[in-house]
Amino acid sequence: MTTPPQIIALSKIKSLLREVDLIDLISEGFIAYSEGDAVVPPVGELILDDPPGEVHIKYGYLHDDDYYVIKIASGFFENANLGIPSSNGMMLVFSQQTGEPVAILLDEAYLTDVRTAVAGAIAAAAMAPKNVSRIGIVGTGVQARLQLRHLSTVTDCTKVLVWGRNESKLDSYVSDMSAYGFEVEATRDAAQIGASCNLIVTTTPSKKTIIHGSTILPGTHITAMGSDTPEKQELDTSLLRRADLLVADSISQCLTRGEIHHAIAEGEVRENSIVELGDLLSGRENWVREDSDITIADLTGVAVQDIQIAKAVYEASL
Amino acid sequence: MTTPPQIIALSKIKSLLREVDLIDLISEGFIAYSEGDAVVPPVGELILDDPPGEVHIKYGYLHDDDYYVIKIASGFFENANLGIPSSNGMMLVFSQQTGEPVAILLDEAYLTDVRTAVAGAIAAAAMAPKNVSRIGIVGTGVQARLQLRHLSTVTDCTKVLVWGRNESKLDSYVSDMSAYGFEVEATRDAAQIGASCNLIVTTTPSKKTIIHGSTILPGTHITAMGSDTPEKQELDTSLLRRADLLVADSISQCLTRGEIHHAIAEGEVRENSIVELGDLLSGRENWVREDSDITIADLTGVAVQDIQIAKAVYEASL
Repeated sequence: MTTPPQIIALSKIKSLLREVDLIDLISEGFIAYSEGDAVVPPVGELILDDPPGEVHIKYGYLHDDDYYVIKIASGFFENANLGIPSSNGMMLVFSQQTGEPVAILLDEAYLTDVRTAVAGAIAAAAMAPKNVSRIGIVGTGVQARLQLRHLSTVTDCTKVLVWGRNESKLDSYVSDMSAYGFEVEATRDAAQIGASCNLIVTTTPSKKTIIHGSTILPGTHITAMGSDTPEKQELDTSLLRRADLLVADSISQCLTRGEIHHAIAEGEVRENSIVELGDLLSGRENWVREDSDITIADLTGVAVQDIQIAKAVYEASL
Repeated sequence: MTTPPQIIALSKIKSLLREVDLIDLISEGFIAYSEGDAVVPPVGELILDDPPGEVHIKYGYLHDDDYYVIKIASGFFENANLGIPSSNGMMLVFSQQTGEPVAILLDEAYLTDVRTAVAGAIAAAAMAPKNVSRIGIVGTGVQARLQLRHLSTVTDCTKVLVWGRNESKLDSYVSDMSAYGFEVEATRDAAQIGASCNLIVTTTPSKKTIIHGSTILPGTHITAMGSDTPEKQELDTSLLRRADLLVADSISQCLTRGEIHHAIAEGEVRENSIVELGDLLSGRENWVREDSDITIADLTGVAVQDIQIAKAVYEASL
């Protein structure tokens, strides 16, 4: 008789998350990944046509660890017509000793949102200037909110400029984030972000560049987490060329999706100039910010983030 | 607020299975697969070293259907030392309309065993001689038992000869299967299987051939379901050359794993002589058995079997 896996619903997951230090755990995941201590096979993909939907299966484990994790994440974009979220999914935790399932986290894609925001905070903590004058947020959706909230672990700065195309979404953003204590102004002119912010997070699924090299101030850090497919692109490639430090969460993945591969294709950036986030975090890559440095982190999402957050929730439940 | 998925434990799964006609449902799956109506991406694989373990993720859906299915199946062969089964896993059922999970079947790999045995019965029903004089079973494990039991839907023959290497496992098999009403004799001489049986099922993970072409009687059908990797092989390739009808559950898969690819590599069989099981079942491939025909079905396991059995269990639970 085997022990059945724990089934953990979203409400319980949210309360368990309050007990764990995700910054540390996910940083450890990035370091293990860059040191070759993570086994992360290619992402599984299932495409549906009618209605259009896509399902991604990300999975893997760290060596000398207790668990392996399988994440299922779906996006069904016509769900909005039914009044239900487009994203869904679950994370499954199994024993590395026996293969037995130990936990099923019915997170409805929430943990993916959180681990993505935590990665933004980790990149900013490692790369952003010491004195942040104003935070620039590009986009008004879920990550535009979560990334800003998670930056409170990185900087005391509460001044924010948010860019979006849609006036009413900008209004909602300003009102929602003001409730968290931020002083938020809105703009529909993306150049204003570069002109007044030195810590910028881009969070849109845009396929047209939004932030341009000429508009950025010296000493600025940009975390680009919106683009995660071969087609999406938020930063123009000349901006990547100007960067004094260019970091990818996964170099191999950033060669085919996200911001960097566009710049490599256009000859603006060379692959050997990219630093992997885990190497920066571990100190294997030795880097000290100069005041005028422009830095960019290109985050496309890596299964180690899922592995670390799923394990953390399960272990907190024990 | 979304509806949480149903969690269905193994005991409940076993009772629900009594309500469904798996032969029909899984036959429909094979037909859909051969007609190109199934979407079945490459199998995901996760390999662990210490202790050794392997995890396979099979997934897909049929067009114009209500659900997609993801199966996770693990094999941790040192579990025997801990007194727990080496196989484990679960099947997940999701809505094709919204991506929402609707059911989690905690089947502990049982449904894989059943769908594999049902495929054997389907192949035998389509291919075996009308008058079965004696059933030959090669192997003494889980599938050696389940395949025989499922053959009761195909033939009234209850005479059985079982082959194995281990005397005590043969004894257990004879005693266990006799309790189901079979008249079982045992042998450690594999040539005896060919000499006296005209419906043979091979179920071992052997990497050395067990059944040889010269030992088989005219009019015999063989279902080879033990070999499912590139290395495993139970039938010698001259036997495949002698076959008047050679069927694969998936032609594309049988070109790299199972029995057939060995015979193709040795020039004994040509790819265009292989018939896909779904085409035989649908009648697209027109074939009538002659009394002396030797027929072989090479079953390596296809995700449509998982899709069909998981859906059936979930729908029976509603």
